[in-house]
Formats: sequence, structure tokens, C-alpha cells
Amino acid sequence: MASVLTEELVKNGAEVFTCVEGRSDFTRNLALERNVNTVYTNELLAQKVDIIISAVTPSVAIDSAVSIGTNFKGAYVDINNISPEVVKSALQHIKQGKAVDAAIIGSVNRKKVQILASGKHAPEFAQLNDFGLNIKIIGTEIGQASGIKMLRSSYTKGVSALLWETFYAAYKMGVDEELFDVIGNTEGSEFEKSAISRIISTAFHASRRQEEMKEVKLALSLSQDPILAKSTERKFHEIAQKLKKLDKKPDNYREAFLLWEKEI
Amino acid sequence: MASVLTEELVKNGAEVFTCVEGRSDFTRNLALERNVNTVYTNELLAQKVDIIISAVTPSVAIDSAVSIGTNFKGAYVDINNISPEVVKSALQHIKQGKAVDAAIIGSVNRKKVQILASGKHAPEFAQLNDFGLNIKIIGTEIGQASGIKMLRSSYTKGVSALLWETFYAAYKMGVDEELFDVIGNTEGSEFEKSAISRIISTAFHASRRQEEMKEVKLALSLSQDPILAKSTERKFHEIAQKLKKLDKKPDNYREAFLLWEKEI
Repeated sequence: MASVLTEELVKNGAEVFTCVEGRSDFTRNLALERNVNTVYTNELLAQKVDIIISAVTPSVAIDSAVSIGTNFKGAYVDINNISPEVVKSALQHIKQGKAVDAAIIGSVNRKKVQILASGKHAPEFAQLNDFGLNIKIIGTEIGQASGIKMLRSSYTKGVSALLWETFYAAYKMGVDEELFDVIGNTEGSEFEKSAISRIISTAFHASRRQEEMKEVKLALSLSQDPILAKSTERKFHEIAQKLKKLDKKPDNYREAFLLWEKEI
Repeated sequence: MASVLTEELVKNGAEVFTCVEGRSDFTRNLALERNVNTVYTNELLAQKVDIIISAVTPSVAIDSAVSIGTNFKGAYVDINNISPEVVKSALQHIKQGKAVDAAIIGSVNRKKVQILASGKHAPEFAQLNDFGLNIKIIGTEIGQASGIKMLRSSYTKGVSALLWETFYAAYKMGVDEELFDVIGNTEGSEFEKSAISRIISTAFHASRRQEEMKEVKLALSLSQDPILAKSTERKFHEIAQKLKKLDKKPDNYREAFLLWEKEI
């Protein structure tokens, strides 16, 4: 994620710094090649820049905010794939800085990936739209941007799990092709293509999606018993258990179902 | 359901009979008004017609087949909203007749409602396309037409339950409108309209949908543990318990959520 954003920012003339503390020589060289300045501690980073974007492994999102310390006065943007509650925990360590909640929507490899931002300092981060990013401010509260990302996941991942369950039954009954037609009649002409792509990528990413559903479940449970989110997680778990050794995407959805059956 | 099909058939010149055994005077008069011939037992009906369409309360679908008896030699079409296994149980009572599995797809009130038919005698039923019906033969086996109806329900009702859970959370977080936009970006421009309509009708029909999910669950459990179907049923149950006294559709989705909260 970080490297896609960096590439865009550098290309558009922004001066970009990264902290390479504990990173491999490969990563350090990559930074140099891409015209990214390197510093060796987060404290030094905080002295150099106006905006810090935290794009790290979800499990260290809070550590990352802590390490920036309390002296940083610029904008600190948490763009990690974590639930709103964890974003809030992380950002409370940014005592003097301008905390911003941000979330990447959809695939980061898509052209001009959409970034949502919230919090009263979101406009500071949105200045980076002048440097090629595609940031949309969606609210004044921390937790809204990451919350929308979680809720979008709740819907899209739930649909994927539902498609798996429904079309696996159809496949076993020999009516899968007919079912695409029948549902497509009301859901629109794109239904079949999009459903097939979701079934195939569920086979391949079930394990990662199961992990992501834990954060989704957490976000939803603030307002209700997340019945569907729980069962979506369980469905991914069931799929992942049997398909854990997949080293490439199946060629088509029937192959995905066949591989899955073999493991039962 | 029966009256919509009847109207179309009579309008297009078919000679239609119905059995009024045990029906009210109102129903009998309605039949007369609509140029439908009446007989007083299913046995008499079986002597008069070439095609019998069973469109009854799901719980009496099997009794209906039994009462036609073993002497009927025409086409017997089970078009009831029941799972494939129950269709098979009903149709095994049609010893000499030509059994057909049929299913209405979507709302019966839509113009030219789509009817799917399966079984090797489906073409006999499809002759009624000459009398204004819209029948599509989708396979040669009993259980396929009713199966597709169940699987379509699995998907569409699952999506409705998922929309309820996801957008209720969004509503509580104050990001519901943004979420329609963000999901609509990838799901298409019709997403918001269709999602809102599904949330509202879920509030109104939750109890009926919960009942229908029992048949769906049954159909899916032949091939797998229907994790999503079970949780969809539970979600409808949870909604229905709190909204059972609704006597009209809510005006908008926020009203649906508000009414629901009041009952918590």
C-alpha cells in the first residue's frame, strides 16, 4: 500500500521520507531508487515532515503512533486496515499532532485508488490531492473513514460468502448456469461476471478474509449482534481450512468448488 | 398467485376449471365472474382437464397431489413455494400423470411473471405459453425449478439481511449516506435504490421471510452446512420479533431502523 502511494506522491513532486529502521537492505535500496529520502528513526521522521502517513502491518498500528511521540505537530494519518476503535486507540497517542483517520477503499492497485478521510484535520491530509492522491473527506470525526471501510467489507465480503454457499449448492444440483441467468434478470447484466470473480477470489483469499472479518465483526458489534458478520467469518474459515494450500487462483468457479470438495 | 395466472389464461382463450370444494361463496362467485368453470371435487377436476396447476398454501401441497389420485393422466404441475424435496414427495403421488416441477420467480404481480419449469414433461406445461404465460424450461429433472427458486431466495434474502445489518451499523455511526455512495462506486448506480427498497421491505416482511428461509435452509443442507442461510433466518427472526406489529411499510429506511430500535 505504502509503495503505491509513495510512487504517486514522488511522481507529482512531493518530497517523501520513510523510516527504514529495522528494514532490509533491499527495502533501503528500493527507497533510494524511487527517490524517497530515508531516515533511521521515527523521531527523526517526525522532525522532517509535515504529514506522516502510517501504513503498516495492522498489528503494529498502535506502536507506530506511540513511536512518533508527543512532539510531532504535523498531520498524522492512520491509513491502516484496522477497526475504528483501534484507530481511536492509536490516534490518542498523537497528543500535539493533527490526527486524521483514513482508509483505502477497494484494491490499492486500481488507478487513482480512492482514499476516504475523516476528522477535523482531514483537510490537511487532503492537500495531497495536489500531489496526485484521490482523497475524499467524508466527515469530521475520527472513526468514520475506517468505519466506512469496515462496513463496506461487511457488505462485499458477506456477499462473497453468500455467493459461495448459494452457487456451491447450485453447482451440486446442476443448475449453476441457470441460476446466474435467473438472478441476473433482477440484479443486472453484470451479476454473473462479478459473482464468478468473487467466488474465485474467495477460494484464493479465504484465509485473509477470515482475518479481516474479525475487525468487521468488532466494528458492527458496537451497535448490534453481528449475526451475518459472524457467519461470514465462519464460512471463510470453513473454506480456508480446506483450501489452505492453493498457490494460484483457480481458473474458474467450478474448479474452485472441485478443489474444495477434494479437501472435504 | 392462482388468480393472476387464471386471469392471464382466461384472457388468452384457455378454458380454465377450479375446484371450489370447501371454498367460500365469495370465492365461488369470483370464479364465475372471471369466467372460470367450477367443479366440486379434485376427482372431478382430474376428469375435466389436460393440465392441473397446483397453486395452494405450501402446507397442503402434498395433500393436493394425493387428492388428484392415481387416475389422472394429464400434466400435473406443482408451482408451490416449497423446497425441491417436498416437490418430489408431492409428485410421487402422481402415478400415471405427467409430473412437472414449476416455480414463480420474483413478484407474481409483475407483468408477465417468469415461470421456470423442469422435468421431462415440462414441455406439456410450456404449451400454456400459447395462452399468455411466460414459462421457461430449465431442465429435465424434478427439483430443478423449485431448487432454483430456493437458491435465488438464498441469495436475495441473504443480501437483504446483510444490508439490514450493515446499514443499521452505518446509520448508528452517521455514515449511512456515505456508505451508499462508497459501495455504489463498485456495485453500480442502482445500488442505493435497490438497497433502500430491500431494507424497507425487510422491515415489513421479516416474519414471512423467516418462514421462507426454513425451506431455503433445507434445500441448501443437502450439499453443505448452510451457515449463511441459518444466520439469514436468525436475522429475520430478530427483526420480526421487534417489528411484528407493523401495519404498513415504513416510509424510508431510517424510519424502519427507528421503529426497530424502539422495540429493543
